[in-house]
Amino acid sequence: MENYIEKLTAEQKQEVKRQLEIYRNGAQEILPVAELKNKIAKSIFLNKPLKIKLGLDPSAPDVHIGHTVVLNKLKQFQENGHIIQLIIGDFTGKIGDPTGKSAARKQLTAEEVKHNAKTYFEQFSKVLDMEKVDLHYNSKWLADLNLEDVIRLSASITVARLLERNDFSERLSAGKPISLHEFFYPLMQGYDSVVLESDIELGGNDQHFNVLMGRHLQEHFEKEKQVVMLLPLLEGLDGKEKMSKSKNNYIGVDEDPNHMYGKTMSIPDELTAKYFNLVTDLPVSEKERMAEQIESGSFHPRDAKMLLGKTIVRMYHGAEAAEKAEQHFKTIFQKGAMPEDIPEIAWSGADEVPIIDLIAELGLLSSKTEARKMIANSGIRINGEKVNDVKLTVEITDGLVLQAGKRNFVKLKRSPQT
Amino acid sequence: MENYIEKLTAEQKQEVKRQLEIYRNGAQEILPVAELKNKIAKSIFLNKPLKIKLGLDPSAPDVHIGHTVVLNKLKQFQENGHIIQLIIGDFTGKIGDPTGKSAARKQLTAEEVKHNAKTYFEQFSKVLDMEKVDLHYNSKWLADLNLEDVIRLSASITVARLLERNDFSERLSAGKPISLHEFFYPLMQGYDSVVLESDIELGGNDQHFNVLMGRHLQEHFEKEKQVVMLLPLLEGLDGKEKMSKSKNNYIGVDEDPNHMYGKTMSIPDELTAKYFNLVTDLPVSEKERMAEQIESGSFHPRDAKMLLGKTIVRMYHGAEAAEKAEQHFKTIFQKGAMPEDIPEIAWSGADEVPIIDLIAELGLLSSKTEARKMIANSGIRINGEKVNDVKLTVEITDGLVLQAGKRNFVKLKRSPQT
Repeated sequence: MENYIEKLTAEQKQEVKRQLEIYRNGAQEILPVAELKNKIAKSIFLNKPLKIKLGLDPSAPDVHIGHTVVLNKLKQFQENGHIIQLIIGDFTGKIGDPTGKSAARKQLTAEEVKHNAKTYFEQFSKVLDMEKVDLHYNSKWLADLNLEDVIRLSASITVARLLERNDFSERLSAGKPISLHEFFYPLMQGYDSVVLESDIELGGNDQHFNVLMGRHLQEHFEKEKQVVMLLPLLEGLDGKEKMSKSKNNYIGVDEDPNHMYGKTMSIPDELTAKYFNLVTDLPVSEKERMAEQIESGSFHPRDAKMLLGKTIVRMYHGAEAAEKAEQHFKTIFQKGAMPEDIPEIAWSGADEVPIIDLIAELGLLSSKTEARKMIANSGIRINGEKVNDVKLTVEITDGLVLQAGKRNFVKLKRSPQT
Repeated sequence: MENYIEKLTAEQKQEVKRQLEIYRNGAQEILPVAELKNKIAKSIFLNKPLKIKLGLDPSAPDVHIGHTVVLNKLKQFQENGHIIQLIIGDFTGKIGDPTGKSAARKQLTAEEVKHNAKTYFEQFSKVLDMEKVDLHYNSKWLADLNLEDVIRLSASITVARLLERNDFSERLSAGKPISLHEFFYPLMQGYDSVVLESDIELGGNDQHFNVLMGRHLQEHFEKEKQVVMLLPLLEGLDGKEKMSKSKNNYIGVDEDPNHMYGKTMSIPDELTAKYFNLVTDLPVSEKERMAEQIESGSFHPRDAKMLLGKTIVRMYHGAEAAEKAEQHFKTIFQKGAMPEDIPEIAWSGADEVPIIDLIAELGLLSSKTEARKMIANSGIRINGEKVNDVKLTVEITDGLVLQAGKRNFVKLKRSPQT
């Protein structure tokens, strides 16, 4: 690739610098930075947007703010006029796990893929301007590859190189089986970049190997190589594990304002600055200022977190909802009162129910064990009264308010028994 | 597979035993023998021939008697009414080596494949009844596989299993690259067995892994598994390395009777019994008797080898030619005279030629270095006269006889200079 930086005017060079600063912020790794800089210069010199790629697994369409780390980065590129390429990995989705061993990789029908993709877009539209997004289903080109194509593709990569991928090498040395077909997933992901001539591919920090594969294959097919940009993985509400639905430590972008705000308030203080940086749309300078103030202690941890919660709600539900969510939080948690807008659940069960069963059936907590624990910790209230007896039988009345912990309220609406 | 042996009459059981004995003779490994026995029983019970598979590399069609070890085994099956499946690996032949690193695996055109296959058949027809052979080109089914098929196929095998193949594990541990596409060759060979529902696959002893792959894949595709039969590799004339054209230690099945006979006489004595066993069509009892007599010394090594030479010539050129070749050998080597039927070569070069250049141009020896060595060892004669001077300039005359070593004669026929 020629050097485009030297072709630019001083003003244009300033623009390269400005963009580069934005993109670098929060990125864990950029391989290589010099190429990213030159690509930005090229796009300015030729007045041609860059193609920024993100691959999506069609089997898990629930978007939480952990995903928005990448989405926010895409948004920065989009705001600077570049083109976002979203690739739905429908080809692998339709195959599923041919060994039948992985429950996670279940085979999806064409309808399920479409449905999941639609769910993605609805949620992504909260961050990106989806009208401007370049959307692809990779079965379009992968389904047409024949054995000869596959062999030529495979000839570009060595077995030793594939075994360098962390989980492969670990499994091989632990004597755990790696099916040969697993070697194809990074190759397919990489081949997508060849077909789409992507300039930059984004991925989570655990996608290091797969994203580099695109760069490798583009070189093999004599295309301009993509720059690899890896973003940090966001810890979930527990502050320990990566945010994920299965760990139940997430904030969904579809959640209502009060839950979103309340969940944000539950993250450990030391993650506040990181969340500001990775999941909010504040300007870089603002994020940096915030981080400094939190670090120095001039910004009270709880106030910082309240601003974070308000910012997140504002991003997904607008300023008014953010204001209300803050009020709601203050009302309940700061004044200890019951909120005004408790969700109602229709109850068509028995008239008298053991408290543990009631909590479980309403799905207020994830298990009966949890319910027992919370009663022991005085965390369950009925109409504001603490429940102390795990064996309590509750007499169901219309409008009964059940509360688990500080934020979790439901109001029962009596409906005829079924 | 059900037990067919127990369904047979005593006479039929005897027939199973008879065939089994023939097939086992000379085979280095049969996996598993019990299944082979049951397959023979099945073919007798159902009066249905077995399918015996041999895969062929279309890039190296020169057949030498090293190859006939396998061909003779196929012939035994054919003589007992079973069907021989010859598979021309044209699919891989047409791809060649996609990395371009292996000179051996050059890309063949469709015409070259056809031509090479034809050459195979002409040569194979000296051993097998080609009218009865079931012939296949594997591109017929392999070219139609798409990426999804490949992934499903790959899911049946683990990387660890593939790395068990000797050369793969050695290369991996030596840090030598294995291209991913190389993993496909055994899979493709195995898939051929799935498509053709082969009962038995034959291969050289170095094909252990690849031939077992057919068995593995048939199981994966819920077909009856093939039995694997591995045959020993034949040492070449040097008695050390595997017979091969590149080592120039071979006897081609297309060679003329005198060369065939003479080359046979040059093998080390201790290989005579092995050659009898592996490359001749004598009955098992005869082979065993011969081996005992050679072992005990009651059969003189030279006489045994002469019988071997005569047998081999008889197999490829008929009884009369065998008789003549023996006479020819006796005339030259036992009486020291010049043979009667020296091949003529037209000479249209210079009138005076340095001896070294002459030998090289006639292709009498493989290099000038060889020519110099042989002169030093008094192995070169012109018209029966030893040549002692490596710098000798030879005056070309019509009918000049040039001799290299004991058996290598050419007669020059002067033709106009070009």
